Amino acid sequence: MLLLSPIFASALALIIVVFLTLNILKKSSGDEKMKEISLMIQEGARTFLKREYQTVALVVIAIAIIFSIMPYISQNIGEEINIKTAITFIIGATCSALAGYIGMSIATRTNAKTTHAAKKGLTPALQISFSGGAVMGLTVVGLGLLGLFAVYKIVGDNISAINGYAMGASLLALFARSGGGIYTKGADMGADLVGKVEAGIPEDDPRNPAVIADNVGDNVGDIAGMGADLLESYVESIIATIAIGYALFISGQVGKDIIFLPFAIASWGIIASIVGILWVRFAPVNDAQKSLNAGVYIANIVMALGSFFIIKHVGLTYGTYGVMGPFWAMIAGLVTGIIIAGVSEYYSSPHFNPVKRLAESAQSGPAIVVVGGLSIGMISSLVPVVCIAAATILGFKMAGMYGIAIGALGMLSTLGITLAVDSYGPVADNAGGIAEMTQQDASVREVTDQLDSVGNTTAAIGKGFAIGSAAFSALGLITAYIATLSRFAEGRIVLDISDPKILSGLLIGGMIPFVFAALLAGGVGKIANKIIDEVRRQFKEIKGLMEGKAKPDSSLCIDIATKGALASMMGPGLMVILAPVAVGFFLGPLALGGFLVGSLVTGLPLAIQMANSGAALDNAKKYIEEGNFGGKGTLAHKASVVGDTVGDPLKDTMGPSINILVKLMSVISLVLAPLFARFL
Amino acid sequence: MLLLSPIFASALALIIVVFLTLNILKKSSGDEKMKEISLMIQEGARTFLKREYQTVALVVIAIAIIFSIMPYISQNIGEEINIKTAITFIIGATCSALAGYIGMSIATRTNAKTTHAAKKGLTPALQISFSGGAVMGLTVVGLGLLGLFAVYKIVGDNISAINGYAMGASLLALFARSGGGIYTKGADMGADLVGKVEAGIPEDDPRNPAVIADNVGDNVGDIAGMGADLLESYVESIIATIAIGYALFISGQVGKDIIFLPFAIASWGIIASIVGILWVRFAPVNDAQKSLNAGVYIANIVMALGSFFIIKHVGLTYGTYGVMGPFWAMIAGLVTGIIIAGVSEYYSSPHFNPVKRLAESAQSGPAIVVVGGLSIGMISSLVPVVCIAAATILGFKMAGMYGIAIGALGMLSTLGITLAVDSYGPVADNAGGIAEMTQQDASVREVTDQLDSVGNTTAAIGKGFAIGSAAFSALGLITAYIATLSRFAEGRIVLDISDPKILSGLLIGGMIPFVFAALLAGGVGKIANKIIDEVRRQFKEIKGLMEGKAKPDSSLCIDIATKGALASMMGPGLMVILAPVAVGFFLGPLALGGFLVGSLVTGLPLAIQMANSGAALDNAKKYIEEGNFGGKGTLAHKASVVGDTVGDPLKDTMGPSINILVKLMSVISLVLAPLFARFL
Repeated sequence: MLLLSPIFASALALIIVVFLTLNILKKSSGDEKMKEISLMIQEGARTFLKREYQTVALVVIAIAIIFSIMPYISQNIGEEINIKTAITFIIGATCSALAGYIGMSIATRTNAKTTHAAKKGLTPALQISFSGGAVMGLTVVGLGLLGLFAVYKIVGDNISAINGYAMGASLLALFARSGGGIYTKGADMGADLVGKVEAGIPEDDPRNPAVIADNVGDNVGDIAGMGADLLESYVESIIATIAIGYALFISGQVGKDIIFLPFAIASWGIIASIVGILWVRFAPVNDAQKSLNAGVYIANIVMALGSFFIIKHVGLTYGTYGVMGPFWAMIAGLVTGIIIAGVSEYYSSPHFNPVKRLAESAQSGPAIVVVGGLSIGMISSLVPVVCIAAATILGFKMAGMYGIAIGALGMLSTLGITLAVDSYGPVADNAGGIAEMTQQDASVREVTDQLDSVGNTTAAIGKGFAIGSAAFSALGLITAYIATLSRFAEGRIVLDISDPKILSGLLIGGMIPFVFAALLAGGVGKIANKIIDEVRRQFKEIKGLMEGKAKPDSSLCIDIATKGALASMMGPGLMVILAPVAVGFFLGPLALGGFLVGSLVTGLPLAIQMANSGAALDNAKKYIEEGNFGGKGTLAHKASVVGDTVGDPLKDTMGPSINILVKLMSVISLVLAPLFARFL
Repeated sequence: MLLLSPIFASALALIIVVFLTLNILKKSSGDEKMKEISLMIQEGARTFLKREYQTVALVVIAIAIIFSIMPYISQNIGEEINIKTAITFIIGATCSALAGYIGMSIATRTNAKTTHAAKKGLTPALQISFSGGAVMGLTVVGLGLLGLFAVYKIVGDNISAINGYAMGASLLALFARSGGGIYTKGADMGADLVGKVEAGIPEDDPRNPAVIADNVGDNVGDIAGMGADLLESYVESIIATIAIGYALFISGQVGKDIIFLPFAIASWGIIASIVGILWVRFAPVNDAQKSLNAGVYIANIVMALGSFFIIKHVGLTYGTYGVMGPFWAMIAGLVTGIIIAGVSEYYSSPHFNPVKRLAESAQSGPAIVVVGGLSIGMISSLVPVVCIAAATILGFKMAGMYGIAIGALGMLSTLGITLAVDSYGPVADNAGGIAEMTQQDASVREVTDQLDSVGNTTAAIGKGFAIGSAAFSALGLITAYIATLSRFAEGRIVLDISDPKILSGLLIGGMIPFVFAALLAGGVGKIANKIIDEVRRQFKEIKGLMEGKAKPDSSLCIDIATKGALASMMGPGLMVILAPVAVGFFLGPLALGGFLVGSLVTGLPLAIQMANSGAALDNAKKYIEEGNFGGKGTLAHKASVVGDTVGDPLKDTMGPSINILVKLMSVISLVLAPLFARFL
């Protein structure tokens, strides 16, 4: 049973992280030029993360203080929200920050090493870039589970306080995703609009002063942001399962093993992920995509088999549900995750019809391709939403509320490898950028291009997965919120849709993701405009820059993006924190329940749309660049570049942040439920 | 009390329609060239409408047959759904079709006459173009109310059968909006993309073979489509009020006057609208916008004053609600309508900051302006959604469920003049087009440009109003749906959000507007591509066309748009009809309730976003064309043209169709509620 111990499993994950890291660090980073660029990216990313964490720390401390003084305001509420909540909250935020920092530090060190390894061929290049991703994946699950287990031991009987951990992780994720997302796309759009469109120089050209900022952005947005996002979903799915299990245990329906089960499943999930990761890391590679897919499938099979025996062994029965009910609920979640990923791939990969036809439509100009890209994203929400609905109904049928929560856990149990595959994408992207900037041989670039192309697909799949898992986690949290209210009302709370306040809550909640996304887009636009001005200035004032004789001043662009992103993330961030509090106070806790569901109802399809629209537009451009419909330099290509630039903030800033919006508002409501329950 | 009789009021409206029509028809249509173009537009619009109605008739007949045979399938259900439902359904569809046909016939005759009148100055040009709009406005309210009152008398005690009338109007509206919307934007995008972007000829240039199709589209989409949309909202708001009032009467809480009240308010609303219309028609004009606004304000004041006395006189009291409760609920709806219109104006008019800044951002290229335009739309959903939520809560506080329904009625009571102002927009737009095509003097074009510019603002306001009223009507219908289920369940039905089936219904419902909008956009793209090919072919094959020596073959483009729109509207249309039926059968009537609310929760902000994004992008382009940021021919202008083209299908096809999607799914559920109630 050692393998099912959270401490053992997370320690094992972290030990492997150390080995992978040592192995990466001893690899060569190539020549001086490569080292220099890699160092600038590392430096920029570290600086941003440091300043971001400093800013967020103020918010964290303020909230922790509020939690700590609760008992002095009201004794009743203080029994639920107190210094323990504050401590778990701080631990959650710290774990998330630490995981983001470690993962990103290693990832930014891996990029140049991947470029260097590409000189020796595909296998070593994939192995090292994937190792960089695996560090992120295993750090997230290792730290996430370890922290959660520690918190679980600390809170003792005050089980509500464990929610603070989720809120801490969620708050950090919000700022990591939105700040990182604004940074990465502000820099990217700025770099592209002047570089590619105005000056006519290629992407990642070393003459462009904004290119390093763009590369920094890939790391802070796609690696640190994605990691924090999924760490949050991961711990929330476990916490929701614990919370509902605890309620069942308290009511005397089932033994205490029900609380042990989510920990056991999560622990086994880490083992399964490690098996998959080692397979990718050491098996010979012919096709990068197939190799990554094989790793994920192996992990999922190991997961399914293991959890069958775990659930059978634990042997829970409660209500009318059989022993294997939770197993089937878990499998429903696991399968939903795979389907959502497949749908994302279908709508965003250049190997399938939607992107091919989108690329074809680019011949009719930029407007047609943009509308087409938006439409692809919209239609791509059909299957994922139906699957999530089906998994919810199925999970409930199999094991009641507990089944819904354990479905989410099933989806996220193999996060170790899923996130490794996701994070590999930006590493490969950066490696390609460095190869471009340092003008490597065609053979090297061929390898990095191949890795990059696979990375784009895995990134799109990862985004789909992140959204699906966020929706599932939010469902779990909302269920837990309602369960908590019921506990206070001493009876089952009913949130009747036809109650005008709840209906209003639904409508207002449904509007929030739109407004939030627009605020983020505003931040991106502001930074992009400032960077455009700066790049134009440098092209004009630095003599010999366009001829490649002088060097651009990249640090100024990095500074603009850093300051801009930090300034722009505060407004939307505070809105997300304050909106549920305001609804809870003014419209009451039941309307707040409606509000949370409303934000999920629009947030889910909107996030899917944005992620897949962006990915489809990106890949339509790449498809044309491969020589289809005339290739580079044609009007179709220009149109597709416009489409890609529109899609960028959708897929990397607005869409992914909506995941966290929905989760954070739910977890804040859950933490504050004892407070709002007074208005019942 | 004569003024409060529905027969008198609607007869008065229709008599004024006849006078306005005779007055319009005796005006000159100008020279031969103007007459020719006007005739082509009339011909094209009539052909499309005829073929559209023929196609829809098949669907109407099929559904009517299903209703008629219900009693033979199940006697219980047959008591509620029977031949009477079929008859009211057909009357509803016919009234809508007739109103659309009459309004559009007159509007298409008015355009050339407006151009001709513009030679004499602003006042006669505004008067005639507004008369054209007023015909539409008064026909819709006159026929809508008359038909409803007739149906009310026909159904007698079988009050459920009256819902068929709403469903008929709704079904026709769906096809009018989506078919017309696909037509207008397919033709518009096709015309613009080759004409303005490729060939470099101005908008509405007579050499462009797709220009006439574009003008036809304005009429079938913005006039016939908008009219059908608002006719539906109008009758549905009355029906929802009757349905809820009837339930209160049955339960013995209140006298039968509660059913008379909505008819009295609607009748007085027609009188108020007529007062406003006559004011605009006969008062001297200095500023077109101010003149129109004055008419609307006058009508609203007359409405508010009159309804105060009506409600006081009727003197309903029930539950804990006072006599004046319904009055305040009505005022809440009226004010919400005005606020929503104001918000639309703020975010889409070039006189305010959002559009000015959007135009400024066009200097950074097309991608930035598109993302900016999408963001403006998103953020513009904040205030309208909050207002609708507030009006719902307030209405309920003032007069219970009846208050919510009467709030919707308040918003729509002065539809006669609101729709007149809306419909004036496309008439002015067409008049400008004809002035352009027939190369009129600068002084004429100055007048038509002024009318057109005002028309753009009124169109944007009209769209905001259409969305707000649709949301309100849908709220009323959903409430009526739940009330009907309760009647069958012999107790109050509870739609608990935490029930997994209802939650799934919410999620699936929330996805539908996205998929529906994407399907419509697909239709637009297909037609635009076909028209692009055709225009390119004509430019290449017709010798002397570019030099203005030969005439283009406009009829081919009209044919492409007509066939394409009819083919493309069927798929999404059937989806909207079948989706609630499928949810009702497979997930049950409670999940269907969740489904309807879910579609409203996403549909409302999505429709607002699309309408305001499109209008803002359109006006940003116009603002640049007025000479700001370099004016025509600059990169900023080119970028804004791309933005406008992206915004076009959003504001004229996808957004407005979502209004009807939400309403139609609700009314279908309401009609079929007795059927689904068996699964309770």
